[in-house]
Amino acid sequence: MDRSDDLAAWLRLVLTEGVGTQTARELLARFGLPGEILSAGFPALQKCVPEKLAYALSGKVDEAMQAQIDATLAWAALPGNHVITLADTAYPQALLTIADPPPLLYAKGRIDLLSRPALAIVGSRNATAQGMQNAEQFARTLSLSGICVVSGLALGIDAAAHLGACDSNPDSGSTIAVTGTGLDLVYPGRHRALAHRIAEQGCLLSEYPLGTPAIASNFPRRNRLISGLSVGVLVVEAALQSGSLITARSALEQGREVFAIPGSIHSPLAKGCHRLIRDGAKLVESAQDIMEELRGHGLAATPARRRAEAVNSPSAPPPSATRASAQVLTAVGHDPASVDVLAERSGLSVSDVQTVLLLLEMEGQVERLPDGRYQKYTHIVRQSDR
Amino acid sequence: MDRSDDLAAWLRLVLTEGVGTQTARELLARFGLPGEILSAGFPALQKCVPEKLAYALSGKVDEAMQAQIDATLAWAALPGNHVITLADTAYPQALLTIADPPPLLYAKGRIDLLSRPALAIVGSRNATAQGMQNAEQFARTLSLSGICVVSGLALGIDAAAHLGACDSNPDSGSTIAVTGTGLDLVYPGRHRALAHRIAEQGCLLSEYPLGTPAIASNFPRRNRLISGLSVGVLVVEAALQSGSLITARSALEQGREVFAIPGSIHSPLAKGCHRLIRDGAKLVESAQDIMEELRGHGLAATPARRRAEAVNSPSAPPPSATRASAQVLTAVGHDPASVDVLAERSGLSVSDVQTVLLLLEMEGQVERLPDGRYQKYTHIVRQSDR
Repeated sequence: MDRSDDLAAWLRLVLTEGVGTQTARELLARFGLPGEILSAGFPALQKCVPEKLAYALSGKVDEAMQAQIDATLAWAALPGNHVITLADTAYPQALLTIADPPPLLYAKGRIDLLSRPALAIVGSRNATAQGMQNAEQFARTLSLSGICVVSGLALGIDAAAHLGACDSNPDSGSTIAVTGTGLDLVYPGRHRALAHRIAEQGCLLSEYPLGTPAIASNFPRRNRLISGLSVGVLVVEAALQSGSLITARSALEQGREVFAIPGSIHSPLAKGCHRLIRDGAKLVESAQDIMEELRGHGLAATPARRRAEAVNSPSAPPPSATRASAQVLTAVGHDPASVDVLAERSGLSVSDVQTVLLLLEMEGQVERLPDGRYQKYTHIVRQSDR
Repeated sequence: MDRSDDLAAWLRLVLTEGVGTQTARELLARFGLPGEILSAGFPALQKCVPEKLAYALSGKVDEAMQAQIDATLAWAALPGNHVITLADTAYPQALLTIADPPPLLYAKGRIDLLSRPALAIVGSRNATAQGMQNAEQFARTLSLSGICVVSGLALGIDAAAHLGACDSNPDSGSTIAVTGTGLDLVYPGRHRALAHRIAEQGCLLSEYPLGTPAIASNFPRRNRLISGLSVGVLVVEAALQSGSLITARSALEQGREVFAIPGSIHSPLAKGCHRLIRDGAKLVESAQDIMEELRGHGLAATPARRRAEAVNSPSAPPPSATRASAQVLTAVGHDPASVDVLAERSGLSVSDVQTVLLLLEMEGQVERLPDGRYQKYTHIVRQSDR
């Protein structure tokens, strides 16, 4: 099966009515790759999915489905466009740590950004001028430090964050916009130029099939990807009961950090941030505050980040987490090993090893076992013996 | 010994050079009341204080000291003026819980306020107009709720807090100004009218003898009384490295709550508050936020507070902590009793008893023993058998 057939099988699987994230994962875990699911036959499929769905997956592809698959393959063949499956190495490792990673992602632009350490910046669509400026400034500093800024292409804070971070320099973190529509559509319409620029210098990402219009219920669900792609979420301005607080909540559920910018007690747009701070989010006054926290997470430093930090905080200690990550990753095998053993194997201190393991675990590269030992994380659908 | 002789002995003790808070407490613990210390004689005194000090305390009063004592007694005889000793029932119970309560307090005004539940409001001398307005509004709401607002008579936030809380209505919490000078002086000079108003409607308080001018080192030391008198400290606007942060630190050392009002990340006067919030202070947006926290401390509600709360939060449950306090205090004896026993004796629930005990402990009315049981707190210098 070549790449195109393989992708066609993935598309047929996820485009089949009744196959949600959960069902797709169950089928992949049981049968292996989508080609194997589709050739498993009705009797085998019927044992784990409803009869109607088993029939749809085992029968012939109908015309409408085939047209959709062909159109998507044609779209994916255009320069800069990508359809990324759970089995691809380009699939963002960070998403493997969330409860329901989408089986398929549509991407437009620099998919190398999907493996960058990332921070989400979200906030109100009706932001103040100061809030927009804050978002833009934080995003610019983070991007210059090699951290990718993730947001949702919405008006207000989202747009300001994308604009501040958008940068075609390969060392920069640039930006990822996770949309709630198919990637052949832009919502909101007035962000057409911004989306075009992100496709050039950053990356547009969606789990929704091409042609999916703006449906209200898709946006809160999309938020789990914004936080899931990121080590943490920064909320810049947010009213109480806003979408940004949903993103913050999903960040907490995913074990991500939550950061919030405080403001005047008389500003309704500060109330969401204040609520988050009271609930345990970290109050931040500058992008440096965030980078210090991320360094606590053992986040690797890129050359660009080192440059930005040299400008912003001349006394910062030289980061060496990248090399440490590689050393620990080499030391971790497929058999469980304790932190002490890994320290001995890698020649690093126990606390350095712990820091790096936390990062690797968040990146989905290692797995922490209930007894506290670690082993390499094996990608579920790459296990062909399943 | 009548009241005036007794007071003269207290004055002589604390006015004697070399007798600080610590020495005074040691002498009181060993000999009993000041009259007994002064008549203990040189040989007995020499066993616990330096020879020079033993001589000064056992010899004849010199003229200058006698003049100072007479002047203070004359001042104390004027309407509204008070000298309060550690042994007086008017001595603020809250101060008994701090590490170094002053043996003597000078007061001018309503000393009934010294037994009110109190909250300190402090902040920058160079406050913004918005900061001053915030301080005034928080103070007014708290005072209307029966909570006494404590501050330091300084320019800026202190003055705004005093002004907002100052109220001659006997149900209101009104305000206490803890000064860093003798009470016959006003510092800063331009607060003469404010000090006069506080003496009428609130209370001026100082541990410094009459005539003590403004000495820089006395002000940070005075801050421990501002926090010590209070259940918590609210910092309204404060730069980094400001006196307000000293007060907040002393509040933490004394086990008091710290509250802070956030602000713009671009305002230097918000930075102190943000630092405090990051270090664990509670972010507050309104006086109601503080009152909710204080209610968690089992703080008694006065009729005035009930009225204010009825206006401000119509759905608040009717407070009944005052009666519960009395019931528990009746149940606690001089023999240690467990929370369960106190619940049985008072007829209250275990959690209600725990809440009330926390308050009574903070007020210095009960003492928690290492084994978790409680007993009445016996005032050290009232034990005449010492």
